[in-house]
Amino acid sequence: MHRLELTKPDGRRLTLYGRSAIEAGLQAPSPFAEPLNASPHLRWHPLRGEWVTYAAYRQGRTFLPPPEYNPLAPTVSADNPTEVPAGRWDIAVFDNRFPSLGVAPGAEPPPRLIVPTEPARGQCEVVVFTQDPKGALGRLPLDHIDLLLQVWGERTVRLGERPEIQYVLPFENRGAEVGVTLHHPHGQIYAYPVVPPVPARMQQVAAEHLARHGRGPLEALIQAELSDRARLVYAGPHVVAFVPVCARYPYEVWVAPIRAVASFAELEPPERADLARALKTVLLKYDGLWQRPLPYLMAWYQAPTDGQVHPEMHLHAEIYPPYRTRDRLKYLAGTEIAAGFFAMDALPEEKARELQQVEVSLS
Amino acid sequence: MHRLELTKPDGRRLTLYGRSAIEAGLQAPSPFAEPLNASPHLRWHPLRGEWVTYAAYRQGRTFLPPPEYNPLAPTVSADNPTEVPAGRWDIAVFDNRFPSLGVAPGAEPPPRLIVPTEPARGQCEVVVFTQDPKGALGRLPLDHIDLLLQVWGERTVRLGERPEIQYVLPFENRGAEVGVTLHHPHGQIYAYPVVPPVPARMQQVAAEHLARHGRGPLEALIQAELSDRARLVYAGPHVVAFVPVCARYPYEVWVAPIRAVASFAELEPPERADLARALKTVLLKYDGLWQRPLPYLMAWYQAPTDGQVHPEMHLHAEIYPPYRTRDRLKYLAGTEIAAGFFAMDALPEEKARELQQVEVSLS
Repeated sequence: MHRLELTKPDGRRLTLYGRSAIEAGLQAPSPFAEPLNASPHLRWHPLRGEWVTYAAYRQGRTFLPPPEYNPLAPTVSADNPTEVPAGRWDIAVFDNRFPSLGVAPGAEPPPRLIVPTEPARGQCEVVVFTQDPKGALGRLPLDHIDLLLQVWGERTVRLGERPEIQYVLPFENRGAEVGVTLHHPHGQIYAYPVVPPVPARMQQVAAEHLARHGRGPLEALIQAELSDRARLVYAGPHVVAFVPVCARYPYEVWVAPIRAVASFAELEPPERADLARALKTVLLKYDGLWQRPLPYLMAWYQAPTDGQVHPEMHLHAEIYPPYRTRDRLKYLAGTEIAAGFFAMDALPEEKARELQQVEVSLS
Repeated sequence: MHRLELTKPDGRRLTLYGRSAIEAGLQAPSPFAEPLNASPHLRWHPLRGEWVTYAAYRQGRTFLPPPEYNPLAPTVSADNPTEVPAGRWDIAVFDNRFPSLGVAPGAEPPPRLIVPTEPARGQCEVVVFTQDPKGALGRLPLDHIDLLLQVWGERTVRLGERPEIQYVLPFENRGAEVGVTLHHPHGQIYAYPVVPPVPARMQQVAAEHLARHGRGPLEALIQAELSDRARLVYAGPHVVAFVPVCARYPYEVWVAPIRAVASFAELEPPERADLARALKTVLLKYDGLWQRPLPYLMAWYQAPTDGQVHPEMHLHAEIYPPYRTRDRLKYLAGTEIAAGFFAMDALPEEKARELQQVEVSLS
């Protein structure tokens, strides 16, 4: 992995990654001249027992790009700088200009309110998967996807080393149906100052399972899915992908190394290579299902970066496409949003069969 | 409150409620002749430590209504029966034909799978708010809304008495933006065989707060919101409505009795009347905000019906409109769905001011 660290004119960081050497002499552009002045704050939610972040400037963006402007494409004209330079690189990571988490030096203190408040420490990064605005994560070459897995690992280590950061979540929102307005292939990384509610719950459940059964719940589930085979979408030497027996979305798929590694950084190269194959297989099957790009939310769960060892945690992706049929979205409504109780009108076994039947070529 | 209990030709129950006497001799219609044959099942989600329900027949509905057919409007022709009869009544409650919860007698046992399964016991009810298909909950007369609060209370008591039911959640999904295809004013009631994740978390947090501070967190928050006044939307003698300081949706509003009652059934008549005024005020302000019907999800949280006393629980509604501006939806994406960590780009104080400025007449 090759890497070049740069600083943008507005002070934000940009890191370029390459399978081969990064082009020398590249400069970091920015659509913005003035320094970032973020001061998001957290408020305590006393009924749910969790923090909520407020970044009020995010709505009032004054930046009005020309219609065809793509801030994630390489800069072609100095008059219209984007977020990344032209030149030889494969993946770019930069600080989000409108972060929900991350407080600038000298930022205003959080407001005093009727509930506890805190500065919203942390970091929001944007990950540009490729220079090609028409590309897609699933259509990248295997060694390019392998590089992305390394990048996610490196960002997790670097962010997780900061004492204020307790959890690092790489994710991708893909498609207008999940609110994406920028169609250049990219994802995001949120680095939280707390372990957020969903991974906190997972960690607690997994620790209890490990204590009781001697292994984590995902390790146990993977063995059972491998034996059952009914819901498998990919089974390689080191990695498995499946519609989980407990899927909450019709086309939900999990991708995980069979060995219970706690984070990207613990993957051995052959495991990472197989993980790239598994991920590419799933994403190509998604797009092959209805012969069109399938929108999804993909999140990668790892161990918290809270300074403790987490043998109960097992690196994996959960991918949630929002469709329940070719034409119908699955809306999260009363029972899902208000109760947190998911209702499915499709059986995971049937949806797995549909995905199993999609032929893909990894080329 | 007047009430008439009926049974539909397919065996489902229908209860009609009225402010005045229900018309005599009404029969319960049904669009379906054959008996309900529901056999949804639960599967255990071993990573989240929660149940998911599967009701696979829900997608394969064979019923193809004519284009203008409204199953929630009173039946006008015996050739085209709807779910409710013509005649004098105000509110109707009937068993959902496609329930996510509720197992018919003699239903198939749940499948044997690699995770624990259970029959999906419980009940799903549909609540028709009015006979008028063009109406809206917020535009109903105050005594009609008061009747609805009584109906929610009565359903909660009746469902909660059943030993297998641990939690009753009345809710309304309103608007195409939250997935509603049937625009006749109606809501739903889910009666769960477990305390679902969100109320379970609320209950745990509230019990700790009560033990530590001598009162529940909502009682404390209401006193603070009443003192602060910045986010109040309604303040009556017994009930308050406000954009909570910890709102997770821009136009989120909570409606609650000031006294910490645990469920609808504990409301005194003056409290219930004020609750109707508060709810009507909020819903009319919503529709007045942009001079169009505002979609929302409204959920009513109460104490579990698990046979225990819950002094920590405090009846209230949480209402989440999905818009963040007039033209832009708030999508739940990476951080909200995958991490359970909400990011807001609007301040509750500003959104409360917008709602405060909408004038409404309760007439």
